[in-house]
Amino acid sequence: RDNIIEVTLDYLSAGIDPDKTNICIQSAIPALHALTFYYMNLVTTQRLSRNPTVKSEMKLRGFTGNDVDNDNEQGLPAGFFTYPVSQAADITAFKATTVPAGEDQMPMVEQTREIAHRFNTIYNCDVLVEPDILIPDVSAQRRLPGLDGKAKMSKSLGNCIYLSDDEKTVKQKVMSMYTDPTHINIADPGHVEGNMVFTYLDAFLRDDSQFADYLPDYQNLDEMKEHYQKGGLGDMKCKKFLLKVMEEMLQPIRVERAKWSANIGDVFDILKAGTDHAVKVTNATLSECREAMKINYFDDKASMVADWEAWEKESHSEA
Amino acid sequence: RDNIIEVTLDYLSAGIDPDKTNICIQSAIPALHALTFYYMNLVTTQRLSRNPTVKSEMKLRGFTGNDVDNDNEQGLPAGFFTYPVSQAADITAFKATTVPAGEDQMPMVEQTREIAHRFNTIYNCDVLVEPDILIPDVSAQRRLPGLDGKAKMSKSLGNCIYLSDDEKTVKQKVMSMYTDPTHINIADPGHVEGNMVFTYLDAFLRDDSQFADYLPDYQNLDEMKEHYQKGGLGDMKCKKFLLKVMEEMLQPIRVERAKWSANIGDVFDILKAGTDHAVKVTNATLSECREAMKINYFDDKASMVADWEAWEKESHSEA
Repeated sequence: RDNIIEVTLDYLSAGIDPDKTNICIQSAIPALHALTFYYMNLVTTQRLSRNPTVKSEMKLRGFTGNDVDNDNEQGLPAGFFTYPVSQAADITAFKATTVPAGEDQMPMVEQTREIAHRFNTIYNCDVLVEPDILIPDVSAQRRLPGLDGKAKMSKSLGNCIYLSDDEKTVKQKVMSMYTDPTHINIADPGHVEGNMVFTYLDAFLRDDSQFADYLPDYQNLDEMKEHYQKGGLGDMKCKKFLLKVMEEMLQPIRVERAKWSANIGDVFDILKAGTDHAVKVTNATLSECREAMKINYFDDKASMVADWEAWEKESHSEA
Repeated sequence: RDNIIEVTLDYLSAGIDPDKTNICIQSAIPALHALTFYYMNLVTTQRLSRNPTVKSEMKLRGFTGNDVDNDNEQGLPAGFFTYPVSQAADITAFKATTVPAGEDQMPMVEQTREIAHRFNTIYNCDVLVEPDILIPDVSAQRRLPGLDGKAKMSKSLGNCIYLSDDEKTVKQKVMSMYTDPTHINIADPGHVEGNMVFTYLDAFLRDDSQFADYLPDYQNLDEMKEHYQKGGLGDMKCKKFLLKVMEEMLQPIRVERAKWSANIGDVFDILKAGTDHAVKVTNATLSECREAMKINYFDDKASMVADWEAWEKESHSEA
């Protein structure tokens, strides 16, 4: 529950405008459960096993689904295994055309396109939209690694900066970032690839004017990288610059967050209004789907009765 | 759609009283989808793979989940794989205490008990009821084999008698039943085990008075079986007796069916009223579940805001 408020605070303080962008709680939207349920018949267990995220978890947990009596197999929660189906419902219920996401989400969006296509084909309709993924142009923004250089950020590893972190915490985190273990003395040549300080600069440097403001030794990031690679530029100087760049972005978010935090009742109201709206929008899609699937049994009594009578007549004339 | 009316006609004509027993359409009850969705996290893929029905289908379709890049694996529809979870929702949403079913459904009810138990344990509540299965006392009624002796009845094999079959069809079917291939001449000793005529008599003979009415040579089924095993009782005589027994049961059902068939509008109304009622009952269970799971976010604004404020304070004092 508290996480839901936290994430909403992240959204609002980062500038997502609830008047333009609807914020809602997935688990409170019944149509998403129904669509997940229906889509489950449009995708095979084999296809789900090919999802890279599911695949690596299956490997990790020793689930093969083969040696079914082997008690060493832990298995995955079925909800995890079928999560891509649920994501397809989340996306298609809103008839989303574009999904802004990190590149690790590409297989999920691809699965969604497949399900939407299959639904439209099987039920001979054009109810569902096949969405496109929108990934950032800058490659470092497509999937930001952890502060420690690990591909995956996680709360338990503590290797990420939160929008809710205060200035002191962000400073500590930036100062402890993974750089280049071979870059021991300032004069040593350094590597920028796999060096988190440069990866984060790639991702977060807004424009070259930030050099003029905070690090006038260089005109731009290329010059800075060149110096680091040649040798003579210390990690501390780089980290201090990154901290300035990060803080320029985080400071206004922190101010916004403080405002919203003082009015959590408003945040609640935004979530509630957004969810109410989402319930309506997704119920409309669900109705269209049920009609296409011909399981809208109670929409039209006359036609259901007439259908059965025609069918009954036919099956008797066959016999 | 037509099948739904057919099955409802079966129920009504066989004597299920809609005033006592609620008849409803699963796919039109939103709470069942939501509960399926939640329960999905309470069961592992490994556990689902152990379900005998799922297991045999997995074998049949070559799904191992192991050799994930092998395109020869067809996989199961994910909806089939997770079907036991959906059944658990169907049962628990009504807080059913007893599930009357064939013995092949025992693993499904067992899975339901596990899910209900896990839910109550994890969310520290007693919202869900662990149901018991009610299987018939007479073993032949627990799982009736097909007319051809196959364990499974199926529409495509045409090896079953339908409540909607007319007299002529039932006669044809009974006369073509699988008996005992070693029982060639009437005088030959015959086997009653695996002989569908005797299996069906075991299942459908109401009481011994039916011998007095239709086959006064014997007092009861034991005497008849004894004669068949000794030799001297022909298949035709047995089948004619079985047909009488079947017709005594089917005739009144057929009369009821004709009445309801002439008023399909009423059948529709019964289904609609039953489904409306089921929606209410299951929504109540869903609400209790959501409360136990603490995901009833919008039920109480004041408590949600207070919770977050307490949590926020605590996480700051930690840091």
